Amino acid sequence: MESKIPSSRDKPLFTPGPLTTSRTVKQAMLRDLGSRDTEFIDTISRVRNRLLAAAGLSQEKGYESVLMQGSGTFTVESVLSSTISPEGKLLAIVNGAYGDRIVAIAKCHGIETVVVRSLENEVPDVDAIAQALGTDPAIEMVAVVHCETTSGIVNPIEEIGQLVHNSGKRYFVDSMSAFGAVPFDFEACKIDYLVSSANKCIEGVPGFGFCICRRDALESTAGWARTLSLDLLAQWQGLEKNGQFRFTPPTHTILAFDQALSELEAEGGVEGREKRYRSNYETLVQGMREIGFVEFVPEELQGIIITSFRYPEDDAFDFVDFYERLSENGFVIYPGKVTGADCFRIGNIGRIFPSDVKALLHMVRDTLTEMGVNILVESY
Amino acid sequence: MESKIPSSRDKPLFTPGPLTTSRTVKQAMLRDLGSRDTEFIDTISRVRNRLLAAAGLSQEKGYESVLMQGSGTFTVESVLSSTISPEGKLLAIVNGAYGDRIVAIAKCHGIETVVVRSLENEVPDVDAIAQALGTDPAIEMVAVVHCETTSGIVNPIEEIGQLVHNSGKRYFVDSMSAFGAVPFDFEACKIDYLVSSANKCIEGVPGFGFCICRRDALESTAGWARTLSLDLLAQWQGLEKNGQFRFTPPTHTILAFDQALSELEAEGGVEGREKRYRSNYETLVQGMREIGFVEFVPEELQGIIITSFRYPEDDAFDFVDFYERLSENGFVIYPGKVTGADCFRIGNIGRIFPSDVKALLHMVRDTLTEMGVNILVESY
Repeated sequence: MESKIPSSRDKPLFTPGPLTTSRTVKQAMLRDLGSRDTEFIDTISRVRNRLLAAAGLSQEKGYESVLMQGSGTFTVESVLSSTISPEGKLLAIVNGAYGDRIVAIAKCHGIETVVVRSLENEVPDVDAIAQALGTDPAIEMVAVVHCETTSGIVNPIEEIGQLVHNSGKRYFVDSMSAFGAVPFDFEACKIDYLVSSANKCIEGVPGFGFCICRRDALESTAGWARTLSLDLLAQWQGLEKNGQFRFTPPTHTILAFDQALSELEAEGGVEGREKRYRSNYETLVQGMREIGFVEFVPEELQGIIITSFRYPEDDAFDFVDFYERLSENGFVIYPGKVTGADCFRIGNIGRIFPSDVKALLHMVRDTLTEMGVNILVESY
Repeated sequence: MESKIPSSRDKPLFTPGPLTTSRTVKQAMLRDLGSRDTEFIDTISRVRNRLLAAAGLSQEKGYESVLMQGSGTFTVESVLSSTISPEGKLLAIVNGAYGDRIVAIAKCHGIETVVVRSLENEVPDVDAIAQALGTDPAIEMVAVVHCETTSGIVNPIEEIGQLVHNSGKRYFVDSMSAFGAVPFDFEACKIDYLVSSANKCIEGVPGFGFCICRRDALESTAGWARTLSLDLLAQWQGLEKNGQFRFTPPTHTILAFDQALSELEAEGGVEGREKRYRSNYETLVQGMREIGFVEFVPEELQGIIITSFRYPEDDAFDFVDFYERLSENGFVIYPGKVTGADCFRIGNIGRIFPSDVKALLHMVRDTLTEMGVNILVESY
């Protein structure tokens, strides 16, 4: 079926990224800067400092930010393949697909991995983590996903971090879809390495990820990198040496990100952004509940980034049909990813506002009526 | 010193990339498409097919194109770390920094490597390659750089390819800065894997690379990938399965590249683009010789992509000063990279024309006069 929205006007994206970004972020890409030109080198430096500031950190406090080409997964692989010693063991905390991806990366590099697994709508078992740390001294690093985009659950990174710190291990937090919109105390969480990417809550466009890390941790990893491109220490050393990437940087994407960071600051930083996303989230969940939808993750564990909704029980509901009808009418939602239940997802992040969410909710109701799905709690 | 060109107007880039691109290529990025949306999936498919067409190939002929996030080096590492068996040996042909980078990547992955090295302004010794192939049956793949951006030299990829083919080895060509503007017969060259990137002769913006390869070669590599992110076979299988990247694609960069491919076709394809770049090159070299500059690479080995010029012998010449003066006046050239001689480089690629080169030449003359460098062959 043909779209009712002309392609010259893009549909708002209710996805976990790439996101709808502001017009001004995209317009920042209408330039060609040389990758070794002073203006671009200054931009990289500004971006790195602003990332530290967004995390409540600074170089003076002993932290560094490193930009890495590729998708967010490339930066996750950069950390895992660069900062664990040849004999080091990893403890991976898994309650979703992105935890499993950490395990898959470790396996690829022959890094022995202990997995503490919980259900996708349950937070990790802190006692099990403590026990694993207590019984296996070869564990060198603990990895956890901050907001599991699989379900939308938010994991207790500070509680786990204290535990990891007390055991004297390194701590890696994959905060891909949370960083920039979920406030937390980086230092209290005792994080050594945190990863996120350009096209998440900072509302840039995709093309690179970044790692925010303790300088002393990073400096202790010499000789451990298992690749050339994803060598985190070498990438940082290159940036420090002459302000440049070792290999061609995504210049346009970085210009967009610099603008996105300005817009984050203008919105009141992480707290300001959280406020808007929380309004999006509350508008969404209240509206979806009124329609009759049920969330997959218990409310007290649910984050504001993305929400998984269970399929309606009515046989007339077919997700692909539902998705396509919404898309034809100008709203892009996201398929589910949890393994134990039939769900779809709706994201609250990007340059979208409660008014967009309200428009989506109206279209969800209309679409269910068109499809003859009978889950409406109240008549429309 | 402050720039004389306002930052709202970008300087033409006489560099090997990122390049000056067309306004329309950059404008193609003023959109936010979902990475799993039909329109974007169609774009990926179109880009992959057009890349094969630009190489004179098709899926029917047994070839595939695979897009990979990151800089071009990421795609080079993707090929090397995914397509050589655990016991396989590499023969690397080196006459510049990009040949050395291939050796560095192989070393990182523990791939045993035989190096056939020649000077940076000499083509590889074909007899030495033949001898190495004849005496070491463990060699599984031969790697060569097409146009060594280090110097600008073009290596004889067809002659070497025939030799590699007759030995029954795999053949990898790093055609980063040549593909799209240097015509060659892919099949006659017997290439198994070729790599280039978005921000070179196709005149897109940086963010991903691509590999054009024989399907049967790629299919024979199961289980050999040494990373998750850069797994070439898995990336191809993902694209074939649902038309999508395995991990977040650089959506905006791919939209720009699709437009860049349209503009390549409008210019008459690879032959049309070569014609413009050759005019740029000829204008440049003639003008630089008239000023008194001498090229590093002998004319018969020199490609049209980028040219290395030796520093003038006059002590009044200081490259950093020369570079900055040109940049302040709106022209960005490139430092040298060869190891054996003091050189700088001027690129001929990107959305630049002979008129831009002429303007650069005038500014080079003016700058040398300002600096009091006395190499002018004729008075200005």
